[in-house]
Amino acid sequence: MPGAKLGLIEEQARTEAQAPTSALAMFGPETPLRLDSGVSLAPFQIAYQTYGTLNADKTNAILVCHALTGDQHAASANPVTGKPGWWSMMVGPGRPIDTDRFFVICSNVLGGCMGTTGPATTDPNTGEVYGLELPVITIGDMVRAQAMLVDHLGVDVLLAVVGGSMGGMQVLQWAASYPERVLSAVPIATGPRHSAQNIAFHEVGRQAIMADPDWCGGKYIAQGTSPRKGLAVARMAAHITYLSEEALHNKFGRELQDRSALTFGFDADFQIESYLRYQGMTFVDRFDANSYLYMTRAMDYFDLAAQHGGTLANAFRNTKTRFCVVSFTSDWLFPTSENRTIVHALNAAAANVSFVEIETDRGHDAFLLDMPEMFATVRGFLNASARRRGL
Amino acid sequence: MPGAKLGLIEEQARTEAQAPTSALAMFGPETPLRLDSGVSLAPFQIAYQTYGTLNADKTNAILVCHALTGDQHAASANPVTGKPGWWSMMVGPGRPIDTDRFFVICSNVLGGCMGTTGPATTDPNTGEVYGLELPVITIGDMVRAQAMLVDHLGVDVLLAVVGGSMGGMQVLQWAASYPERVLSAVPIATGPRHSAQNIAFHEVGRQAIMADPDWCGGKYIAQGTSPRKGLAVARMAAHITYLSEEALHNKFGRELQDRSALTFGFDADFQIESYLRYQGMTFVDRFDANSYLYMTRAMDYFDLAAQHGGTLANAFRNTKTRFCVVSFTSDWLFPTSENRTIVHALNAAAANVSFVEIETDRGHDAFLLDMPEMFATVRGFLNASARRRGL
Repeated sequence: MPGAKLGLIEEQARTEAQAPTSALAMFGPETPLRLDSGVSLAPFQIAYQTYGTLNADKTNAILVCHALTGDQHAASANPVTGKPGWWSMMVGPGRPIDTDRFFVICSNVLGGCMGTTGPATTDPNTGEVYGLELPVITIGDMVRAQAMLVDHLGVDVLLAVVGGSMGGMQVLQWAASYPERVLSAVPIATGPRHSAQNIAFHEVGRQAIMADPDWCGGKYIAQGTSPRKGLAVARMAAHITYLSEEALHNKFGRELQDRSALTFGFDADFQIESYLRYQGMTFVDRFDANSYLYMTRAMDYFDLAAQHGGTLANAFRNTKTRFCVVSFTSDWLFPTSENRTIVHALNAAAANVSFVEIETDRGHDAFLLDMPEMFATVRGFLNASARRRGL
Repeated sequence: MPGAKLGLIEEQARTEAQAPTSALAMFGPETPLRLDSGVSLAPFQIAYQTYGTLNADKTNAILVCHALTGDQHAASANPVTGKPGWWSMMVGPGRPIDTDRFFVICSNVLGGCMGTTGPATTDPNTGEVYGLELPVITIGDMVRAQAMLVDHLGVDVLLAVVGGSMGGMQVLQWAASYPERVLSAVPIATGPRHSAQNIAFHEVGRQAIMADPDWCGGKYIAQGTSPRKGLAVARMAAHITYLSEEALHNKFGRELQDRSALTFGFDADFQIESYLRYQGMTFVDRFDANSYLYMTRAMDYFDLAAQHGGTLANAFRNTKTRFCVVSFTSDWLFPTSENRTIVHALNAAAANVSFVEIETDRGHDAFLLDMPEMFATVRGFLNASARRRGL
């Protein structure tokens, strides 16, 4: 299914504000994306990065899926922040996902804000920024769009799909929706559905954004404003859930900013306070508030069992995909028990699955950090997958 | 130390907006309260409730300390909400804290918003609402003010001091500051200091309030506004921490409001969302936003070991107080480990201490709920304390 068949318009040119260094795959009115909401989206575009070289047989492609606030810059400097790619320790020459051997694709998800069509995109049909007029996007929609991109890149079967957190949800959705196109799947620090507690934290974030008068009912771009304070509060609340109590205690404890004394005021006395404020402030410079609403909603809506008659194992019935599930002991957002639910379902579906729980105090964020055991696990698993494919 | 010595002006009269049914103890310029910040507060007032009758020997008085958003209405209908007192299952005739036998005192803490001097109070020295001009209040300040109230009520030695969460912090502070005045102490679901993670959650709440333009730099009462949205978001974030993942899962799971289908929008689809929104909305009708800032700050600042040279056991050196520490298995705000730290310190101080960890899925909020094992524990402990005192 090469791209030409799908009526694509490829545009490698820079776009100014969004994803200046990313390739864009353009999908025109003749290739609408049927969304889970029932609405058809057309046209739309996907911003993506590739790393490494696709081999002649097109058998060495690995799709990397990003998390809630991630983007396509897994292994390349982020053009907005100037920082290294969010998974540059995982993806690159000689890295566990070795770009000397593999062709790695990473795209900004549908609904994102780094070049792929999202709420900050101008709707070509109206000439106005989508805002909340963009239909709600699901993990299934993201994956369906990614499949169109993979088609466009001339890849039929992916050697692997890899991702953590919301990226892990996409991995599971890929394995369920396109089992014949995914040889290996590596869902990390994720779950088969979003829990009530996780929905609750997301709802707090959304309410913080929507409570900000500068949100303007979602039309802040047209109004020339930005709900920075609300988005920062949302990020602060979420950020706590990405860490562990133990890590926060070890890193900050009750250490004061000014080590000498409490100030008896409401400025940041404790280091944890100024750390959190910094996390909130820097986030708003790189993320669109409406996109945050869409991303959190997509995660909340994710429920793979519900897609398959209420039985998770049915999502993987007769699958030939090999799975490697990874969890972290101190992750309380997607605790090991959630990851184990996936393993149990895969076992019930007679799938080929390995499961690694990694001991760490770094919490959910561990999947983004220097985790030698995770790297060794992913490297070994992908090497075995490559050997099976004769690479 | 009877009240007259302290130059008190007692006023049982109703005040309009605040605590219409509560007694008020007024402390004039001649009895300033020296705060931990170094500032002297005068005049100030304490709104309180009593239940039961003080015996002739004045040996049957129990002080109940309330939590972050609690008030003096432990066992009487709340005049703002019309709901039963927040601990009416614990305190009352025949209840574990039996008002047929004991004289129970419960006062609104300093910095509160139910009649005791707080940021919403008009500063008699300036004629303007305090707002952020009120000095930052500590748990130590709250307890010092309570001691003045207890003096005023003619009680020298308390049979017991009992409270959960921030109330438990006050219990510990009482035992540390006034060991000779506390025969028995029951700290429930609390800790000897506020953890980094707990400070982080409080900071999110404060930022949510201060991000609301209607907060007006703390001067919203003078401006005729109220940061309702910000305070609601703060409450929502905090409320999640009061529950457990298990309880949320059992109570709400992924149940939808409209059971038939997802709406593909940003209204409350899931029951947990509308539950949280309701918690936020109802809270703002009964709580002052600045008071929320002061209460959270007081908890953040609490560090009993730091008050005693860094060694928690020093806080209880040579204590004769009997302690009963209670924790709940699913409480992740003040987990059993935090409560056990108190027990270890008490053991190191050779104190008389019993410790009960109660199995429940109700999370931190368990101390406010129908917990037969907690009731039996408190009842038994207080009965033994009463026997020792010849009651």
